[in-house]
Amino acid sequence: MLNRVRSAVAHLVSSGGAPPPRPKSPDLPNAPSPQTAAPPEAPRSPPATAGSGSAAPAKTVEARASFSRPTFLQLSPGGLRRADDHAGRAVQSPPDTGRRLPWSTGYAEVINAGKSRHNEDQACCEVVYVEGRRSVSGAPREPSQGQGLCFYYWGLFDGHAGGGAAEMAARLLHRHIREQLKDLSCWSSQKEVTHESLVVGAIENAFQFMDEQMARERRGHQVEGGCCALVVVYLLGKVYVANAGDSRAIIVRNGEIIPMSREFTPETERQRLQLLGFLKPELLGGEFTHLEFPRRIQPKELGQRMLYRDQNMTGWAYKKIELEDLRFPLVCGEGKKARVMATIGVTRGLGDHNLKVCSSTLPIKPFLSCFPEVRVYDLTQYEHCPDDVLVLGTDGLWDVTSDCEVAATVDRVLSAYEPNDPSRYKALAQALVLGARGTPRDRGWRLPNNKLGSGDDISVFVIPLGGPGSYS
Amino acid sequence: MLNRVRSAVAHLVSSGGAPPPRPKSPDLPNAPSPQTAAPPEAPRSPPATAGSGSAAPAKTVEARASFSRPTFLQLSPGGLRRADDHAGRAVQSPPDTGRRLPWSTGYAEVINAGKSRHNEDQACCEVVYVEGRRSVSGAPREPSQGQGLCFYYWGLFDGHAGGGAAEMAARLLHRHIREQLKDLSCWSSQKEVTHESLVVGAIENAFQFMDEQMARERRGHQVEGGCCALVVVYLLGKVYVANAGDSRAIIVRNGEIIPMSREFTPETERQRLQLLGFLKPELLGGEFTHLEFPRRIQPKELGQRMLYRDQNMTGWAYKKIELEDLRFPLVCGEGKKARVMATIGVTRGLGDHNLKVCSSTLPIKPFLSCFPEVRVYDLTQYEHCPDDVLVLGTDGLWDVTSDCEVAATVDRVLSAYEPNDPSRYKALAQALVLGARGTPRDRGWRLPNNKLGSGDDISVFVIPLGGPGSYS
Repeated sequence: MLNRVRSAVAHLVSSGGAPPPRPKSPDLPNAPSPQTAAPPEAPRSPPATAGSGSAAPAKTVEARASFSRPTFLQLSPGGLRRADDHAGRAVQSPPDTGRRLPWSTGYAEVINAGKSRHNEDQACCEVVYVEGRRSVSGAPREPSQGQGLCFYYWGLFDGHAGGGAAEMAARLLHRHIREQLKDLSCWSSQKEVTHESLVVGAIENAFQFMDEQMARERRGHQVEGGCCALVVVYLLGKVYVANAGDSRAIIVRNGEIIPMSREFTPETERQRLQLLGFLKPELLGGEFTHLEFPRRIQPKELGQRMLYRDQNMTGWAYKKIELEDLRFPLVCGEGKKARVMATIGVTRGLGDHNLKVCSSTLPIKPFLSCFPEVRVYDLTQYEHCPDDVLVLGTDGLWDVTSDCEVAATVDRVLSAYEPNDPSRYKALAQALVLGARGTPRDRGWRLPNNKLGSGDDISVFVIPLGGPGSYS
Repeated sequence: MLNRVRSAVAHLVSSGGAPPPRPKSPDLPNAPSPQTAAPPEAPRSPPATAGSGSAAPAKTVEARASFSRPTFLQLSPGGLRRADDHAGRAVQSPPDTGRRLPWSTGYAEVINAGKSRHNEDQACCEVVYVEGRRSVSGAPREPSQGQGLCFYYWGLFDGHAGGGAAEMAARLLHRHIREQLKDLSCWSSQKEVTHESLVVGAIENAFQFMDEQMARERRGHQVEGGCCALVVVYLLGKVYVANAGDSRAIIVRNGEIIPMSREFTPETERQRLQLLGFLKPELLGGEFTHLEFPRRIQPKELGQRMLYRDQNMTGWAYKKIELEDLRFPLVCGEGKKARVMATIGVTRGLGDHNLKVCSSTLPIKPFLSCFPEVRVYDLTQYEHCPDDVLVLGTDGLWDVTSDCEVAATVDRVLSAYEPNDPSRYKALAQALVLGARGTPRDRGWRLPNNKLGSGDDISVFVIPLGGPGSYS
């Protein structure tokens, strides 16, 4: 999550020195260098208290070491040190020995080039069993209603301002999904409410309960953070892709690209953010204006006509500049530099409950949504071949790799392996991570075209869609 | 706008008798019959006061007869009576004698089968000249900045709860657009703000100013109403289609259908409406809940688990029914029966400033948006043939006619005429209206397949896209 939380990191972890000044211009500088901005200590794991109430099914998380990588990587202490080495940036994958990931899923990751002390991406891949919900009295339902089911689960979590939120989500989100899916056992066919819409609702609510658990259990932690979450649930023939943040999922099927998510950023969510600022001006704290201008207004421009957009507009129009238009815009900057309240560059995700505007006590969380957009792909509607894959990546991949480049790599790598060689998907994930990282040259990580590679954490899942029949 | 404002009509025009009871179930009855619900007198024209301030450029509207049809129909008093005859439902088009509409645009309309006293659709087709904006001092700008330009304009306005809003919009909206487009003369090329985005912004703001003018000038009118607005602006090679309501525009190009609008209804705007009710609960007046349930909750179900959706969800989940869930849902019903606050079935448009929930003083206007969605089609990117057309229709057309059926009629009718025969587009508009109206049979208007035709007002523009080069 490079550059995505500007200065907020420094602000959150600063322990006495003056906080950095808020930028006065939308032409924002790059993220602070690791020397000045990295947390002085690693984000701690969530506390070992169980969630309270029925909404918090997840089990207690035990105290852990100061940083962790996904357990399926099976890293030894030495391996963990190599995975944590910003200089070497060795690509990590599950070992060939040991249990293969479900569906022969491929996975690879690499740490950032120094922007944060540890890799703040996390990942999870599980097969989860869901019991039917018991009735209120505690007695199990009749067998036909209470039968359990299994779902397959993959999750990528891209942390910012610390790795705590991503670690917690990787450990617990699928348990919230499991809890919500117990309600499927109550379902009987209705005209309006399909089985599919209940799974979607279960995933949506699981994200919310995960976020609420983070809010409850953050007490006592100095260093807080947030994370983007991109998860895939496979259940009864359908693939559900839920995204909250700026990770991305695409299906590459017979060479064709099918987008399975969209990114949530200050630019794509401008109107939602502006509407909230308009309806709840107290959230702007007298410091920000919900209007957007092409550039920061100068005091001497008071009374002049200037282009603007409000929450209702997709086009631009002119208005006469008034005093409150001199406030800093709620949304400003373009592309990777776009920010909400001059602080955060991603507008959906989990955590961030402590995030404040720099040099201010104004909370940013009210503008962030924990709700994912869920897209559904019916695996049974198409006969998939072993080269058809679902690719999940954090923004470290997508910042420097287009969908088409990923599709070309899918074709190039998979065609070099036998169709029934299960190691081909791991090789593909590694190739994608390597292709986004590049190689060290000219004092930086560079791609073959000499452009800069991604200095961010990079994590990739490659899920073969011929999987359920062939591999499960 | 058949069935779109249930009971509200009766409520607004009732003059002493008890207002109709609010329905207790989402299974809503049909719209009130004309005998009980038609306005006791025709909606009056807007008052003859000019808009005040720079935001209201439109000229004074003079007092008119109690109802009107578009001037380009050139109706005689006898023709006006025939156009107003619910029994005959004669299709109206501009006469072959007299001035042709710009681009040889085709137009046809027919009155409803009795649901309201007059045809509440209105239409406008104009060529509009825009002067460059003068500087603040009143002196004209330099010639290069202040040069004027022309745009072509088509508008369809589908009134409800009276014809006043539709009539006013048909007379004035293009003048608001003209006023807003004067700002184009101030524009100089910028990275972020394109010429196109300024035109979009001008149209968006024109809708808002039109709505504000309706709010100012409604005083003294007993009968108020609202209208959907679908307008097309052609300017400098691009077609801008702006839609607020449930009318629809499609392009049929070489047989292919290109949607140029989407409908705004309680179903398509559910999440926007629920979010507003959630953020501003005072707008619900303690009478409504922002949550959606598949059916109305009964008091005896208190404490039971029930499916619901909130403003963040696209799927469904279960919750325990609490006391406030027994309130009437803000959004309920399906398809054409979907309603906001059990009253109105369309969620964007102009007017409706007086609209209240039945049996209540709760205003509905805060939930309605006057902002259109604007789609842009670049005419220069494709070489259009004389059979390529943009079809605009009020919901009277689309309720009984699919996009594909319209495309088939386009092909059938146009192929029967020489490509250079300008009357072919009028013939097509007439065929579309006739096809949606049907013929009187079995005590109703019926289509060839014996299904019911539309009993609503039906209005259709057919705009040839080969027009600018060939006909202007």
